[in-house]
Formats: sequence, structure tokens, C-alpha cells
Amino acid sequence: MVYAVEMNVKIPESWSEKKLADYLAREKETSQKWQESGKWIYLWRVAGQYANVSIIEADSPEEFHQIISSLPLFPYMDIKVKSLCKHPNAIRESLI
Amino acid sequence: MVYAVEMNVKIPESWSEKKLADYLAREKETSQKWQESGKWIYLWRVAGQYANVSIIEADSPEEFHQIISSLPLFPYMDIKVKSLCKHPNAIRESLI
Amino acid sequence: MVYAVEMNVKIPESWSEKKLADYLAREKETSQKWQESGKWIYLWRVAGQYANVSIIEADSPEEFHQIISSLPLFPYMDIKVKSLCKHPNAIRESLI
Amino acid sequence: MVYAVEMNVKIPESWSEKKLADYLAREKETSQKWQESGKWIYLWRVAGQYANVSIIEADSPEEFHQIISSLPLFPYMDIKVKSLCKHPNAIRESLI
Amino acid sequence: MVYAVEMNVKIPESWSEKKLADYLAREKETSQKWQESGKWIYLWRVAGQYANVSIIEADSPEEFHQIISSLPLFPYMDIKVKSLCKHPNAIRESLI
Amino acid sequence: MVYAVEMNVKIPESWSEKKLADYLAREKETSQKWQESGKWIYLWRVAGQYANVSIIEADSPEEFHQIISSLPLFPYMDIKVKSLCKHPNAIRESLI
Amino acid sequence: MVYAVEMNVKIPESWSEKKLADYLAREKETSQKWQESGKWIYLWRVAGQYANVSIIEADSPEEFHQIISSLPLFPYMDIKVKSLCKHPNAIRESLI
Amino acid sequence: MVYAVEMNVKIPESWSEKKLADYLAREKETSQKWQESGKWIYLWRVAGQYANVSIIEADSPEEFHQIISSLPLFPYMDIKVKSLCKHPNAIRESLI
Amino acid sequence: MVYAVEMNVKIPESWSEKKLADYLAREKETSQKWQESGKWIYLWRVAGQYANVSIIEADSPEEFHQIISSLPLFPYMDIKVKSLCKHPNAIRESLI
Amino acid sequence: MVYAVEMNVKIPESWSEKKLADYLAREKETSQKWQESGKWIYLWRVAGQYANVSIIEADSPEEFHQIISSLPLFPYMDIKVKSLCKHPNAIRESLI
Repeated sequence: MVYAVEMNVKIPESWSEKKLADYLAREKETSQKWQESGKWIYLWRVAGQYANVSIIEADSPEEFHQIISSLPLFPYMDIKVKSLCKHPNAIRESLI
Repeated sequence: MVYAVEMNVKIPESWSEKKLADYLAREKETSQKWQESGKWIYLWRVAGQYANVSIIEADSPEEFHQIISSLPLFPYMDIKVKSLCKHPNAIRESLI
Repeated sequence: MVYAVEMNVKIPESWSEKKLADYLAREKETSQKWQESGKWIYLWRVAGQYANVSIIEADSPEEFHQIISSLPLFPYMDIKVKSLCKHPNAIRESLI
Repeated sequence: MVYAVEMNVKIPESWSEKKLADYLAREKETSQKWQESGKWIYLWRVAGQYANVSIIEADSPEEFHQIISSLPLFPYMDIKVKSLCKHPNAIRESLI
Repeated sequence: MVYAVEMNVKIPESWSEKKLADYLAREKETSQKWQESGKWIYLWRVAGQYANVSIIEADSPEEFHQIISSLPLFPYMDIKVKSLCKHPNAIRESLI
Repeated sequence: MVYAVEMNVKIPESWSEKKLADYLAREKETSQKWQESGKWIYLWRVAGQYANVSIIEADSPEEFHQIISSLPLFPYMDIKVKSLCKHPNAIRESLI
Repeated sequence: MVYAVEMNVKIPESWSEKKLADYLAREKETSQKWQESGKWIYLWRVAGQYANVSIIEADSPEEFHQIISSLPLFPYMDIKVKSLCKHPNAIRESLI
Repeated sequence: MVYAVEMNVKIPESWSEKKLADYLAREKETSQKWQESGKWIYLWRVAGQYANVSIIEADSPEEFHQIISSLPLFPYMDIKVKSLCKHPNAIRESLI
Repeated sequence: MVYAVEMNVKIPESWSEKKLADYLAREKETSQKWQESGKWIYLWRVAGQYANVSIIEADSPEEFHQIISSLPLFPYMDIKVKSLCKHPNAIRESLI
Repeated sequence: MVYAVEMNVKIPESWSEKKLADYLAREKETSQKWQESGKWIYLWRVAGQYANVSIIEADSPEEFHQIISSLPLFPYMDIKVKSLCKHPNAIRESLI
């Protein structure tokens, strides 16, 4: 099943630069691990914003949540989720 | 350039069923023409809502607007647009 | 998979009482068909509002959308959808 | 009486990891105590979000409030509450 | 149990003055019937707005919903509901 | 004159438990002083939320503001105020 | 007592030009009657919007509501009301 | 003085195509008259939306309002206005 | 030109009482200097809220911004601005 | 391609004055570098708010994001982005 996700990062203002850099490095590592697994299909930056739009394909809602919640910045993001399905006007056979 | 678009359809309550059916038929035809052109890359239904999430690649903002505004229901939709670009953590070379 | 759905009905003001009564009768028939199928597990009225909270279990996002979009008032409702999964603190083994 | 509750956790950014872990442990313990009592009937994670949807049955609004406000993270959550009642289209005799 | 309710009336623009006057007369009759029953305890106008704040005491969420949904303008109001309980700082023994 | 007030407390996350306890004790003392004066007529907890609904009768907007702003947590609350007056459908002669 | 009011006019789209012109003429007449009475102290247009900001002084919330609700477009406006009082930093002795 | 304006057109659903076409033609004529006068400096379409962003320079708030309110669709648009001034970091001497 | 301004103060929770008192004293001094200059015409407290409504007359948007941004709490307030002009129904010749 | 951008600065309350002054100095330097490059065409202060409206012309969404994200306060701003294109009623041949 496929989800469209919008993540807006709210950088904690009280963190030291070192703590933030550490989080960002682990964030990158985690998101790339999931991209390499083939489940995190698209990861786009929203131009001009500290935000991304992602398209994630998972075997279940549980797996989808496992992916998102493994991100170190998960507790500090404002996240919007849309569960997707086939549109009657779509000409593509599969979702992805 | 790539845009993520969210369209929420607000069906006018005063339209006859015939007028609505006519609009929906032309909406389908128009969206499929753009999908066949290769520019409207993904058209997904948001599960449980009269809404879609679309990924559209256009040569310019003008062409992107031409695609969206050619939809017969364009004046009756609530539309959110996000201009996308490469995310520093993305492993994919190109956007699509 | 399980979805929590909130539906707010926006009764079209220009409809005749006859047209509205017809829609409401078909709405009831459709929602009961799905409840009898075992997929629409809970249908609650929000006390004091023209709204419901529902818990729906479907085999796929497509089936979930088929259930919701089969409601005659579907185009005239404001619908919020949450895809659910197991909570780490839940003591119940299954979702339902 | 039955309530549908949505809790969005806003993790305080200035807390140490130790303080947060302590809160989360007590949060788990408290919510499980209420689940075991039979009053906190469903506790679901919203897929992809630091949020839950819960269905709670209480003898009174006072008891319902006692349950929610006993959670250690209660002052740090954004909480939405809906008081539920029987829907005229529901085929189930009781609410739960 | 006690509920605080806020009702904002959205007068349908397409109604004739006669239809509207008929609805308003029945609205008045219905709300006064409930006030006389002792269940609709307070009915206040919000100064400067087509809105009211009400305090309603009912035996159950079902009865509360029965009261609100019996109002002829129920489908054309934007309604906010708060279920109330005793505040730890309140000096009054009972809610009302 | 009568006001309906909704106060949502936003507990500052960086406060020590001691500082918070001190504020809460003074908050209780202040609100009870006003209740005993007969001006703060109702103080209800919103079930499931760190919020209250209050009905306050004051001689003037100045006195009403004096009451609310004397609360130690005043700068840390999100407050909504409604000035009330007699509803044409109300059967009660006075507001309170 | 003094109120700051913001009125946003939502012109009903289905009204004939004649009906609308009639309403606007009576709206003007009513607001000018209240201005001449000295109670509607300021009536300003918000530059670029179909909206006004008004400062109204009334003897009571009831009289304030009588003024606003006497406007023919009252049911078709989105109205925000603020009850004002003396600011501790104000150098002016009286409110107006 | 310079204003940034965002206009979102809400096409009335009940209008005939002829009435709408007439309004749109007069809208174009009016906006072009003001552009030719040199006061409506920029008129941009927001890509993918029935909306525009405009930069308007007027001699006074009154003249600015005269420009916007002369548009035939003025009562049917959702309009946001920002009054602009020189930014301390701007290198350009004048606003335009 | 005249502006209506709404300022909501968000007291930083981490400030010491001394730092806050210092800011508040300088805030008072600054706002009174502008009131004495005749440009800050009205400064009202919104009853029951840590907010004010102000009417400010300035020679230009630049001067208006100079007034507001000179307030020490300027970076910690949520500010809404409305540029005002003459209302066609106003009987008063001038704005103030 | 041209973007309209609205940036609302949320000054972190816990920063020292020295840290803030350092950020503001680097913010100025960065924005002026981009203005001198000819890409950041307009930078306006919104009168009365800690916000700006900017018009930026970039070769691609990537370049646009590079400009915005190079600002030191980028993680602490609330940013709204609109991708612009030619309006059918515009008389100007080019966007800028």
C-alpha cells in the first residue's frame, strides 16, 4: 500500500549545534536505508521550505509506521499522511 | 520541474445530475490526455475522500498551470500546490 | 487494515425535502449493507453534531475507498481519515 | 458512556533523554492499567504520526477525565474529544 | 451530565423569507420546549453574532443528541460541543 | 454583564516541578477567591482536556479583565472570550 | 462599554442584483442611523476587502447586539467581536 | 504606497455560463485599465490555482481600495492584503 | 493613514521574572512615547486576553512599521494589521 | 521562474542577544548577496510585522531552494511559497 507523506521539520531552538548535527546525520542515514530497501520510493524537498514530500510503499500500516517512526527527528516533525489508492481516471495500471 | 498537487473537489450542490455527469466525463478525458502526454505522471485517489494527489512534471510554471486549469472542474476545486526539488538525502539521481 | 473516519455532513441547502429524504434513505441502506458485511465495524453519532465517527476494516485502501465512496452523500461530506496500526502500549493483540 | 479521543504528543524539546524515557515508561504503565480495567477499550497508533486514537468507556465525564488526566504526558498533549452516542443507521445494539 | 454547546447559524441564502420565518418559529418553539423541561438550562446570545452558547444537562449522550438534533435548523448550524465535569478548583459542589 | 470564557492551559515545558506546583497552588487560590466573591459563577473542567469553561459575571469589562488577568497562569493560557446577552428564545428572565 | 467589531460580508451569490441593491440601501440607512445616535463611533473600510472595522459604544451587551443584529446583512456576515477595556499603558483617561 | 494582494476567486456555482463570461470579460477590462494606469504594477497567476498575486502602488489606502473594489468579481473573491514598506536589508533604494 | 492593529503577546516561558519585568517596563515607556506623539491614537486591552487592539495614524507605512517595531516585545508578539480607509456608509468626514 | 515568498520570523526565545545579533548580521549579509546577484528581485517588509514578502527569480526550483535555505534563520522561519506564472489578463509581456 502507498502513502503520501508531508513532513515539516521544527528544529528545536534550544539544541546545541552539535546535537542538531548528530540528529541530522542519523536522519540522513535512516532515510537512506529505507530508500535503499525500495520502500521509500520518492523523497522530495519542498522548494523554499524545511519540509519534504515522500511517497512510501509498505506491506502494512504497521510497516509504514515503523519507517516513519524510525527517523530520529520523528518526535519533532509535523507530519501529514494520506493513504492512497487507484484513481478511476488513472491510466497507469499499478500505483507506482 | 515537478509539482505535487492536492485537489479537493467541491461538487456544486445546485447542479443537475446531467450537468455533473457531463463535467465528470470531460474531467476524465482531460486528465487522461495529460497522463498520456507523460506530463501527469501520477494520479492517486486519497482513500476515503473526494480528493486526489498528483505528481506533474512540466517544462515551466506556465505549462503546469495550463495542465491544471484545463480541467473542467478547476474553478470548483480547492487546490494545494508544492514545487519540488531534489532532497539532499535522496539517493535517486533524478526527481522522477 | 483499519481506518478511523470522521464524516461531517453538509446538507445542501437548495435541495427539496423529497430529494434529501431520498438521499438519506439510500445513505442508511448503503451504510447498513457495509455494516452487515462485517467491514464497517462501528458507526457512532457524535453527540450534538451532524457527524459520525466510524471504524472500518478493509482488505486494502481500494476497498476502504469503495465503501466510503458508495455512500450517496459522499460528495457532500467533509471527511477525515486516519490509517491505524498497533500502538506499542496496547495490550490487545489484534487491532479489533 | 463512550468517548473517541485523539491525542497528539508534543515532546518537550528541552527534556533530557532520561526524563523523557521516565515519562514514556510511566505513560505506558498508566495506559495499560486503564486498558486492563476494561475502560480504555481501544488504543491505536495513527500510522506515521506521534498520535493515537482511543475509544474509552467511562461511567461519567468525571471518570473519563480521571483516566485521561492520569497520563503523565497529559499536560503536553494536544487532545481532541468526541462524546459518542448511538447512530440511527447503526445495526449494532450497543455502542461497544 | 452537562454539555457546553456553541451553535453558529448559517442561514441558507436561497431560502425564501417565508421558509426562513417558518424555520425560525419552529426553532423557537423547540428550544423553549426543552428549556421548560429543565434540561436546556441556559440559552445565551453571543453579543454581535448569529450564535448562541448553551448549557444543557441530559441523562445521557443520547438524550443530549436528541435535544440538539430536534432543532429544525440543526442541519444548518456549525456546532461545537464540550462535555463538562467537575473542576478540581471549583467550590460549587454540583455542576449546576 | 456575563462572559463565557474558555481557557486552555499551556504548561511551560521548561519549568521545574516546584515552580509549576507553586503556580498551580496560587492559581487555585485566586480562582477560589473570585468564586467566593460570587463573580466567577461556574468553573467547569472540559472532560479530557487541560482546559476549563467558565461563566463570569462582572460589573464592567474592566472588572472582568481584572478577574482573568489576576490568574498567575494568565500569560500562559490560550483564552477565548464571548460577551453574552439575552437570547430572544430564552425563557429565563435574567442571564443567570 | 466599547466593542471592536470586524464584519466580513459574504454576498449571497444567488441573489438578484435588485435584491442585493435593496439590502445594501437598507444596510447603509441602518448603519447611518446608529452612527448619528453616537453609538457607532467609527466605521472604517478595510482597504482592499469587503469588510469593515467598527468601534461601537453601547450601554450594555444587549444594546450592542441590538445594533449589530439590526443590520439587514447581519445573517450573511462573518463577524468577530472583541470587548475592550482600559489598557494599563494607555495615557488616555477614557476609552473613547 | 505599495500593497501585496492575493486574490482567490470563488466562482459562484449557480451562475449561468453567460453571466460568468460577462463578469470575466469585465474583470479583464477593469484590471487592464488599472495596469495601463501604472498603478497595478504586477499581476501574476499562482501556478495551479484560480488565484493571483498582485503588487499595487497607490497614492492612498482609499485609492488602493478603489482599484480592488472596482473589480466586478470583488464580492466573490477571498482577498488578503499586506501593506509593504522598506526592508532594512533591501539594497534597492525605492520599493518598486 | 490609519491602521487597526491587534497584538497578542506570547510571553517567553524561559525568561526570568527580572528580564520580563524589564521588557514590560520598556514596552510601557515606548508605547506611551508614541501615544504622546499623537500617532498611537487608541490603545485598548482586549477584555480577558493578553492582547490589545490599537488604532495608529502614521504618515507612511514606513512610519507605522517604525512605531510597531520599536516595541521591545515586537519579536514575541503575534500581530495582525489592517490598513483602513473611508467606508462609503460612514458619516464622519475624516477617518479619526 | 518566479516565486512569491512570505517569511515570518520566529525569534527563538532562549537565544542570547549576542547569538541573535550574530544570526541577524549573517542573515543581512546573505540576503544582500542574493539581491546583488539579481535573483532576489524584491525584499519588502510587511508593515507592522516581523515578516517579509519577497519576489525571487531562479533558474530552477533547486536554485530557488538554495537561495532560501542559505539564510541562517531558515530553520526558524514560517515560510509560504507561491510559484508564479503569466496571468491571462496581464499586459506586461514578461513576469518581471
